[in-house]
Amino acid sequence: MASPKLQVAVAGLGRMGARHALNFHNRTPRAELVAAFTPVQKEADWAKVHLEGVPIYNDYQEMLKHPGLQAVVVATVTTAHAEEAIQAIEADKHVLCEKPLSTSVEIVSCLPSAIEFTMNPNLCCQQSQSVVDAAAKKPHLKVMCGFSRRFDASYRDAFDRMDSGVIGRPSILRSQTCDKLDPSGFFVAYAEFSGGIFVDCNIHDIDLALWYFGADSIVKSVVATGITAVQPELRKHKDVDNGVGIVEFWGGKVAYFYSSRMMAAGQHDMTEIIGTEGKIAINSNPIGNLVEMHEATGIRRQIPGDYYGRFEHAFVQEAHEFTAAVLDNTKLPFKLTGAVQAVKIGCALQESLNSGKKINFDETGRRIEASKL
Amino acid sequence: MASPKLQVAVAGLGRMGARHALNFHNRTPRAELVAAFTPVQKEADWAKVHLEGVPIYNDYQEMLKHPGLQAVVVATVTTAHAEEAIQAIEADKHVLCEKPLSTSVEIVSCLPSAIEFTMNPNLCCQQSQSVVDAAAKKPHLKVMCGFSRRFDASYRDAFDRMDSGVIGRPSILRSQTCDKLDPSGFFVAYAEFSGGIFVDCNIHDIDLALWYFGADSIVKSVVATGITAVQPELRKHKDVDNGVGIVEFWGGKVAYFYSSRMMAAGQHDMTEIIGTEGKIAINSNPIGNLVEMHEATGIRRQIPGDYYGRFEHAFVQEAHEFTAAVLDNTKLPFKLTGAVQAVKIGCALQESLNSGKKINFDETGRRIEASKL
Amino acid sequence: MASPKLQVAVAGLGRMGARHALNFHNRTPRAELVAAFTPVQKEADWAKVHLEGVPIYNDYQEMLKHPGLQAVVVATVTTAHAEEAIQAIEADKHVLCEKPLSTSVEIVSCLPSAIEFTMNPNLCCQQSQSVVDAAAKKPHLKVMCGFSRRFDASYRDAFDRMDSGVIGRPSILRSQTCDKLDPSGFFVAYAEFSGGIFVDCNIHDIDLALWYFGADSIVKSVVATGITAVQPELRKHKDVDNGVGIVEFWGGKVAYFYSSRMMAAGQHDMTEIIGTEGKIAINSNPIGNLVEMHEATGIRRQIPGDYYGRFEHAFVQEAHEFTAAVLDNTKLPFKLTGAVQAVKIGCALQESLNSGKKINFDETGRRIEASKL
Amino acid sequence: MASPKLQVAVAGLGRMGARHALNFHNRTPRAELVAAFTPVQKEADWAKVHLEGVPIYNDYQEMLKHPGLQAVVVATVTTAHAEEAIQAIEADKHVLCEKPLSTSVEIVSCLPSAIEFTMNPNLCCQQSQSVVDAAAKKPHLKVMCGFSRRFDASYRDAFDRMDSGVIGRPSILRSQTCDKLDPSGFFVAYAEFSGGIFVDCNIHDIDLALWYFGADSIVKSVVATGITAVQPELRKHKDVDNGVGIVEFWGGKVAYFYSSRMMAAGQHDMTEIIGTEGKIAINSNPIGNLVEMHEATGIRRQIPGDYYGRFEHAFVQEAHEFTAAVLDNTKLPFKLTGAVQAVKIGCALQESLNSGKKINFDETGRRIEASKL
Repeated sequence: MASPKLQVAVAGLGRMGARHALNFHNRTPRAELVAAFTPVQKEADWAKVHLEGVPIYNDYQEMLKHPGLQAVVVATVTTAHAEEAIQAIEADKHVLCEKPLSTSVEIVSCLPSAIEFTMNPNLCCQQSQSVVDAAAKKPHLKVMCGFSRRFDASYRDAFDRMDSGVIGRPSILRSQTCDKLDPSGFFVAYAEFSGGIFVDCNIHDIDLALWYFGADSIVKSVVATGITAVQPELRKHKDVDNGVGIVEFWGGKVAYFYSSRMMAAGQHDMTEIIGTEGKIAINSNPIGNLVEMHEATGIRRQIPGDYYGRFEHAFVQEAHEFTAAVLDNTKLPFKLTGAVQAVKIGCALQESLNSGKKINFDETGRRIEASKL
Repeated sequence: MASPKLQVAVAGLGRMGARHALNFHNRTPRAELVAAFTPVQKEADWAKVHLEGVPIYNDYQEMLKHPGLQAVVVATVTTAHAEEAIQAIEADKHVLCEKPLSTSVEIVSCLPSAIEFTMNPNLCCQQSQSVVDAAAKKPHLKVMCGFSRRFDASYRDAFDRMDSGVIGRPSILRSQTCDKLDPSGFFVAYAEFSGGIFVDCNIHDIDLALWYFGADSIVKSVVATGITAVQPELRKHKDVDNGVGIVEFWGGKVAYFYSSRMMAAGQHDMTEIIGTEGKIAINSNPIGNLVEMHEATGIRRQIPGDYYGRFEHAFVQEAHEFTAAVLDNTKLPFKLTGAVQAVKIGCALQESLNSGKKINFDETGRRIEASKL
Repeated sequence: MASPKLQVAVAGLGRMGARHALNFHNRTPRAELVAAFTPVQKEADWAKVHLEGVPIYNDYQEMLKHPGLQAVVVATVTTAHAEEAIQAIEADKHVLCEKPLSTSVEIVSCLPSAIEFTMNPNLCCQQSQSVVDAAAKKPHLKVMCGFSRRFDASYRDAFDRMDSGVIGRPSILRSQTCDKLDPSGFFVAYAEFSGGIFVDCNIHDIDLALWYFGADSIVKSVVATGITAVQPELRKHKDVDNGVGIVEFWGGKVAYFYSSRMMAAGQHDMTEIIGTEGKIAINSNPIGNLVEMHEATGIRRQIPGDYYGRFEHAFVQEAHEFTAAVLDNTKLPFKLTGAVQAVKIGCALQESLNSGKKINFDETGRRIEASKL
Repeated sequence: MASPKLQVAVAGLGRMGARHALNFHNRTPRAELVAAFTPVQKEADWAKVHLEGVPIYNDYQEMLKHPGLQAVVVATVTTAHAEEAIQAIEADKHVLCEKPLSTSVEIVSCLPSAIEFTMNPNLCCQQSQSVVDAAAKKPHLKVMCGFSRRFDASYRDAFDRMDSGVIGRPSILRSQTCDKLDPSGFFVAYAEFSGGIFVDCNIHDIDLALWYFGADSIVKSVVATGITAVQPELRKHKDVDNGVGIVEFWGGKVAYFYSSRMMAAGQHDMTEIIGTEGKIAINSNPIGNLVEMHEATGIRRQIPGDYYGRFEHAFVQEAHEFTAAVLDNTKLPFKLTGAVQAVKIGCALQESLNSGKKINFDETGRRIEASKL
């Protein structure tokens, strides 16, 4: 007889929710998608076709009561995330907390009110922390925040190489998350609750810095700037469409980040880990597939149009590993607490962007007020 | 209620058989692996772990009687293929005919006795034809020979681009199938029944020529040469470890091929379609993943180590599409008869390699005897 | 009869001086190297062999009196540059002012005392300004500071493309100057008078920002950080071996820079100009030559080992164009005053590195004291 | 006093002749262009501007009598080459024999009548041989046939790497010479006297095979085919616009070649040397410069538009080395006799193209008549 499969539900069937639902439904052999929740009729209609046979709830609490349900993927609208994650934890479900509207927001999903935290980074961290606290009370549950790059084969290969010592001591990390230009104005509406470009996009890059430099890295300073090159209306949400930031860590390590909403060619996320004896570059040369066109204008390659085009297999792998960790009661590949640290740095960058000031931290990671410098 | 799933069995659980079994078991949502056949105990043991719950038969005929069985993937030892394919057809099963021992043999799988056809290409084509004939008697069955590159996203993108006219009239095709050097001597033993390097490796490239130039292309001439650079013992099987061949088609088209068993860096299969107004290159720059190492010796990329590393997703796609074609009774993406044409060309190249002579064909594709030239 | 050739002398025959001398001697058809100056015996000996027939002076003032001399390339030790440039101008010679010890210091050459200006950027700018002032009094003279990248074919092509509008409005510039790791300790000794990594290396990148964003760009803010990953002794000279800086310009443009002394693979200088409708990358994929090695460890390319390996042809082009501008009395390709602006930014970055503070400027480019923010 | 410079003249100031003249005039420090010959008024006018001060002769014999003349570069119309080369040798001049009308014809230049030798390869070799014979009588003279790739830095680096043993025993060579599509019909007119695509284009690739496999390599067989994809009128000159050929050498080595006149993107000449332990690729990824465009259609690079764009520096290096060999009386980098062997192979490929037959040679390199096989 076959092993029992993880009984999993997905909350939210928007862009990313639908992908998660399909991945658990079709591409995760050890899991069975047993329920889904969406309050949106169009999404429920979609589910009838693509998630044939899976019961669709329009009440989240009802879905949590689905018989035999073991785990929930939270992928609803951002503002509901933290609350829903905490409710799932309280209902004794394992949780994979994801993002609803964007290809690149992760941690935001774990927070009750993304709008506010661009105003108040401390609050932002508190809300992020509340999910961690809820999870801490149920140590038998697996609660994971979906940093998809952690599951990407190239990022993992890079980590293993770095970890083997071949580049010496990792010292500088450069990382960017750059979206294809979307002239529809989507990003302006989205910025209202995205947390800002450093929280929304660079949160991935920050997480990579914490991965490659070590989860115990302590921030020394944060500074950021940015412009609105294509969407000036972003300023009303205190956001930009191109941001540059530097994060200094105690112990002689520096990470610097770039995020953009106006790449012409497509999604171009890349990272360099520069060590004392070598450098590892991930995706310096983005590719859509293995085709090169030789034309009168030269040789041309296309690149992925969006985040999912780049990281599709990482999302599938994420589903596999979350499933395995629950079924086999093994450790998740990274800790939930790191997500709080990433949000803290992202919010500080966003604050620096808006205040125009560099923010400093002492060797324990506590913020040093400007007046005390 | 969910749609019924294709009830499929895999015959043979060697290297490629095991991959097919896993793909149908875990990665093909619309199919259910209901049975497998292997006479090898080690493979049966492997199946208990990796194909948990799937009944394993050690008698092929018994497996064909598995209740509800609809389709069979033939992936046993090469010499049994054609016979098993025909038996499955006669038992009224849909058939996906595959190869057993190599990452790169396709059509060979469809033939009873690979050894002989290097000696006698006409016989070779007859045997290949016998599968076609059996299939022709059961037009309600889907019978497909697994040319994996036909399912590869890059090759398909290339076809669509070519088909849209952007490179003008396709005129020259260059294609190579090059395996990583395997110093174990595997390829020598393997050559005994592989049909030779042009049938084993370049069959893929020949199939690509028939795809890109059109299934109705008529061969005008065939010439080949080769060497045994690393494995001189191959000569006892009338084979080589590096082969170069040219196939001329009537109507002003030329394909030329290279195959090798001694690539240092890994598997490097690539194709160029050269048209009157542009060129499409597929996999000119092979990559293992998106990592680049910057080291004292320069910048380095790794490439896939074997055929499956390059074409894994194509095999999964093949399983999806074969499944869909059966369940929905839609057309297979290409015709079985093309496989006979590919084998004919491959065998002619192999014959030219060994005779040292160019072989010519008239405008109907009939061979012109040298004495008549 | 042939046109008269520019009678040119080179002051300093160290690494870069020797290259300039050879370029004017052998590779600049319209120029004739008629004299050289070096106080170093070893260099004079070298000249006897490689600059056969060219008189070598060990007194700079004597060289300036060489009959018929029209132009001087200043490439002596850094600390003598500004003084020698001014002396040459006063002696009515055209001047190409270069750097002596490094492959990457340009503007430093124009300054009397490089040591001091890391301490006092205002002084630094004053000294740079003094060369400009001397030149201003002799408007018939051509006085150029050698920003070699301005003569590089790829950088020029990039400018022309940007200028044609294909990438929309240039908004973000990323640029790096990264030297191969030199474990000899050279860079520590060198840092004593190099002006620091932002003045020494990133001065090129700053100049590119002023080129691509426009010579009239006004700095809004400057912030930098850095580490000593491989050469901690650099701190005694207030320098680092890896630096990251952000320069914001009024009008919504941002440049960010990276410089490093520890690249394993070789020299990697690169630039990206990101516009509202496209991006131009220069040297994202550095190459030494057109050879790729396919080996057991993958596919590998070597890259240039040093600055001259990357920019050799730009230096030759610089010699050609300086010569032509003098002989034909045409405009130099860029203005000397821009060099002062570049030094100002470089010194501000270096100051920010050491103070840990962001420096702000008003819309006229005047510095805003922190107390006034 | 400076060393005496080589007194050199250029015969022919067409496309390549003009380039040679400029290279010796401006870019070859040890040479002095003292005369040039052209019967064409337009070229003589050009020379007045660009070769200022250099006497221009309209009589070749007169030019040979120019006082002090030491060496001649033969770059007139093809049909005059061999005769002029022999006349120069008889006048006791060193000779660098070049091509007149194309970017890619080399050896043709050394032959009196290119038209005929496609008809009669033996004659072709005889004529080529006549230059060798004339040179043999004057062993104190340096007589070189301009195979420009022999002077290219990447090809030399490739040779050195191969020679050091890192790829094991070189076994397979793939090489192509592919011109950008020229819709003007130039190539049709040109084909009348080019010798055909294998002699005109692939002669370079053949020469590379003789370089990398060794000058003493003996041809075992030759076979070729081709098509007229864009210029059907080429058939009247027994030529094609796309050719594929295989050359087998005794001792287990195979070279295969491709030449084309219809590349959309530009000149793409490339070579692979495949050894038993590795592969060296030269120019797999052609580049015009270091710029990459990121656009809505992807990432794009331009490539050189013609042969000179790819090999400019090799031609300059050729001038330097020819000059040095004469002045210092040192050995030329390769032997004139190799050129005869290359022409022999090129003519055999062209013959095979037109006869449709494979040509075989015995172990001494003597041709085996088909009737004796």
